Amino acid sequence: MSTDDFERHKVKMAKKKVVRDKIMATKTESKGLVIVHTGKGKGKSSAAFGMIFRCIAHEIPSAVVQFIKGGMSTGERDLIQEHFSDRCKFFTMGEGFTWETQDKERDILMTRRAWDLSKQLIANPEIKMVLLDEINISLRYGYLPVEEVVEFLTEHKPEDTHVILTGRNASEQLIEIADLATEMELLKHPFRSGVKAQKGIEF
Amino acid sequence: MSTDDFERHKVKMAKKKVVRDKIMATKTESKGLVIVHTGKGKGKSSAAFGMIFRCIAHEIPSAVVQFIKGGMSTGERDLIQEHFSDRCKFFTMGEGFTWETQDKERDILMTRRAWDLSKQLIANPEIKMVLLDEINISLRYGYLPVEEVVEFLTEHKPEDTHVILTGRNASEQLIEIADLATEMELLKHPFRSGVKAQKGIEF
Repeated sequence: MSTDDFERHKVKMAKKKVVRDKIMATKTESKGLVIVHTGKGKGKSSAAFGMIFRCIAHEIPSAVVQFIKGGMSTGERDLIQEHFSDRCKFFTMGEGFTWETQDKERDILMTRRAWDLSKQLIANPEIKMVLLDEINISLRYGYLPVEEVVEFLTEHKPEDTHVILTGRNASEQLIEIADLATEMELLKHPFRSGVKAQKGIEF
Repeated sequence: MSTDDFERHKVKMAKKKVVRDKIMATKTESKGLVIVHTGKGKGKSSAAFGMIFRCIAHEIPSAVVQFIKGGMSTGERDLIQEHFSDRCKFFTMGEGFTWETQDKERDILMTRRAWDLSKQLIANPEIKMVLLDEINISLRYGYLPVEEVVEFLTEHKPEDTHVILTGRNASEQLIEIADLATEMELLKHPFRSGVKAQKGIEF
C-alpha cells in the first residue's frame, strides 16, 4: 500500500470521526432501559449476564430472578453468589423447563412467586438493574399475563432502573414497550452435529 | 383451569420429555468449538464475556484479546483483572475504532501483533477458551487476511479449545468453519431516541 493510500485513509477516517462525534453529541439522555433479548439463537442469557457483570464491575447494585431454568446458568450463579453477593442479589425461582416439572399448577404458582419478587426488586430504589431471566418462556406458556408485566414496567418502573427480559418468543407487546430489543438468530448450532452441552459454553 | 386440563398438560409434557431426552442422548460428543457472534444488534461481546465468566466460574483457564475497542468493555476488563487474573488472561491490543486512530499503517501493525498473541494463546494447551473480541472488524477492514485465521483455526487449534470471534460483518468463510454462529439482530435501539451510552449497558 502506498503512502498516498494511507493519506487517503487518514482523511476519510477524520471525516468519519467528525460525523460520528456530531451524532454522538445528540445522545445526551440517560434513562433506565427496558431491554429484551429474544430469538432462537444462543446468547440471550449470556449477554444479559454480561451486562450484570458490567454492573458488578461498576458497583451498580443489581438483581437476577431466574424464572425457569433452575438447572442452567449455574456457573454465573455460583460466581455471583461466591464473589459478588453484596452487589448482586440472585434468586432462582424456577424448577426447570415445563417438560421437566410436568406440573402446570405448580409452574403457575412458582411463576407468580417469581413475578411478585421481581416487582419488589424493580421498585426498590437501591437496585438499578434487574434481570428477569427466561421470563419470556413463562409469558409464552401463559403462566403470567403479559399485560401485567407491560403495565408494571410502563407505570411503576423507577425512571433510572434498567430491566432485562430474556427468553425465546418475546411477546410483541413487550417488544413494543422495550427501549432496546435484540433478536439472537441461530446461524449454526453444534447440537445438529451431535455435540453435547458443555461446561463454560451452555452452563 | 380444570383438573382435566392440568392432567392433559402433564401427559403432554411427559411425552415431550421422552422425545427430548432421546434427542439429548444422541448428543455425546465433546469438543472445542469455533463460535462466532455477529450482526448489527447488541450483545455480541456481552454474550462472549458471559461465556468467559462461565469459564471463570468453572475454573476453566481462559484468555481475552481485544482487537479494536480498547476503550470499551472496560467494566469486564477491570473485574477480570481485579478478581480473576489467575483464571483469565486479558490483553487489550487495539487503540479504538479506526476512525479514532485515523492511522491505517498503525492499525495493521497492532492487528498483526494481536493476532500473533492470539495464535500463541490458542495453541497453549493450558488455555481452553480464547475470546478474540472484535476481530471481525479487523478482518472486515482487511487488516488481517481471513484466510490466515481460517487456516489457523482449522489446522492448528487444539481439539478441546474453544475460540469465540466477535464483531459485525463476520466473513462467510469464518461462518463456514464455525460450529456455533449467532447473528445478533437489532430490533430496537435507544440511540435512535437520543439516549446516550450508559455505564453497565454499553461499557
